[in-house]
Amino acid sequence: MEDRPIGMFDSGVGGLTVYKEIKEKLPYEKIIYLGDTKEFPYGSKSKQSIIDLSKKNIEYLLRFNVKAIIIACGTATSQALDEVKSMYDIPIIGIIEPTVNYIKENKKYKDIGIIATRGTIRSNTWEKELKSKIQDIKVYNKECPLLAPMAEEGWTQNEIATLTIKEYLKDFPKLDALILGCTHYPLFENTIKKELKNVEIINTGKIIADFLSKNLCSNKNIKKEEQVKKIDEIYLTDTECNFVNVANNILNSKVNIKHVKI
Amino acid sequence: MEDRPIGMFDSGVGGLTVYKEIKEKLPYEKIIYLGDTKEFPYGSKSKQSIIDLSKKNIEYLLRFNVKAIIIACGTATSQALDEVKSMYDIPIIGIIEPTVNYIKENKKYKDIGIIATRGTIRSNTWEKELKSKIQDIKVYNKECPLLAPMAEEGWTQNEIATLTIKEYLKDFPKLDALILGCTHYPLFENTIKKELKNVEIINTGKIIADFLSKNLCSNKNIKKEEQVKKIDEIYLTDTECNFVNVANNILNSKVNIKHVKI
Repeated sequence: MEDRPIGMFDSGVGGLTVYKEIKEKLPYEKIIYLGDTKEFPYGSKSKQSIIDLSKKNIEYLLRFNVKAIIIACGTATSQALDEVKSMYDIPIIGIIEPTVNYIKENKKYKDIGIIATRGTIRSNTWEKELKSKIQDIKVYNKECPLLAPMAEEGWTQNEIATLTIKEYLKDFPKLDALILGCTHYPLFENTIKKELKNVEIINTGKIIADFLSKNLCSNKNIKKEEQVKKIDEIYLTDTECNFVNVANNILNSKVNIKHVKI
Repeated sequence: MEDRPIGMFDSGVGGLTVYKEIKEKLPYEKIIYLGDTKEFPYGSKSKQSIIDLSKKNIEYLLRFNVKAIIIACGTATSQALDEVKSMYDIPIIGIIEPTVNYIKENKKYKDIGIIATRGTIRSNTWEKELKSKIQDIKVYNKECPLLAPMAEEGWTQNEIATLTIKEYLKDFPKLDALILGCTHYPLFENTIKKELKNVEIINTGKIIADFLSKNLCSNKNIKKEEQVKKIDEIYLTDTECNFVNVANNILNSKVNIKHVKI
């Protein structure tokens, strides 16, 4: 069990922000990352489409005998996690529940904003989860369909990104915290922080990494520091994308990518 | 034959810019429009994915006994038209060949730019077609992956759209003409014209409408002015999109949409 890799998937390069946090926290775990770039972006697809794609991705990752699967995609978490988690016999972990539990246990927010893809916001999953666990919390939602494509283009710090962030954030009231509800969005974290001063920005990748660390620890699955680092594997379902450039930018290192048809 | 409708498809709302031009030129033709919004955007998908999707779309439209199919999508034209046009027994018309023929017959361009999706530009179809038919033409390409999603968001005239257009156009030399190689891009025509003064902007929708008018005429398929206008039908493969707002904006009228699983 300890030697089995962790599987993760996203529609594209965004999940690498989660991957990066997991590698920092658990450097001796081997990760199999699947970027479903053929189907990018998930954000504007229907619930049923996302469920079908998530099942395909999970079944692909299961071939690697993974011990857990991280849905490193806000849209797939919000639209498909409930449906898929009971179908398979290993832990499937999305970005929403661990984040809400972390907030409940560590924070005293009254007003919280969420930015995410259209599909995530319209599913209302974040708001339902937050309100079911935290009393008297007020939740403000904003769908931001251009941010993930802009991140895939590598425009995260330029004037266009800044104006787009301003436009998407302009209607929020004073917030205690803003959840980055899509795993692409940590790429805009600096730009968002300039716009929303004194608002805590919640990067779900860091929370997922902590969650895995605690839960894999308690299951005695964590790799020991002295063990040899494993070579991770990154698979993409399509070739026509800007993945490598953005991936190099997120990870500050070269990545080796294989293409697969699933 | 005369009474049969014209079929058209696009990945989303962009093909409606072609639809609009056809309706203006041939108001008595009935059109069946298929927006494959479940798979939007096509621009970042592989050639094989686009061929598979185009076949599915064509086969769906054939159920309506259409007399011709317009691929009102730059990406699908550039990636799939050659493969699919020989597979079916009716005319399948893309946006590239009629446009290049129109330029060859009517214009004397030396330097021509093309903006389009990543998939279209990387296929090099426009450049090959232009250079094979027009001597001594110089072709300059630029992939613009954010423009179609921005058009779907309805941002075509605001400061973000203007800066994005500026960014994408900044490296072109002095051009005689710029081809809008994606059917979403006529939505940015005013913004592009402000940026590229004294450059002819080529909207493929107008050329396709002229082409259909001449060719349906010569085949005696055109509807007579006195005939009753038909109610067009618009089908979408997914529900989660901004289609209706943008469609109303393009067509200045309400559209009736049905959802289909294909």
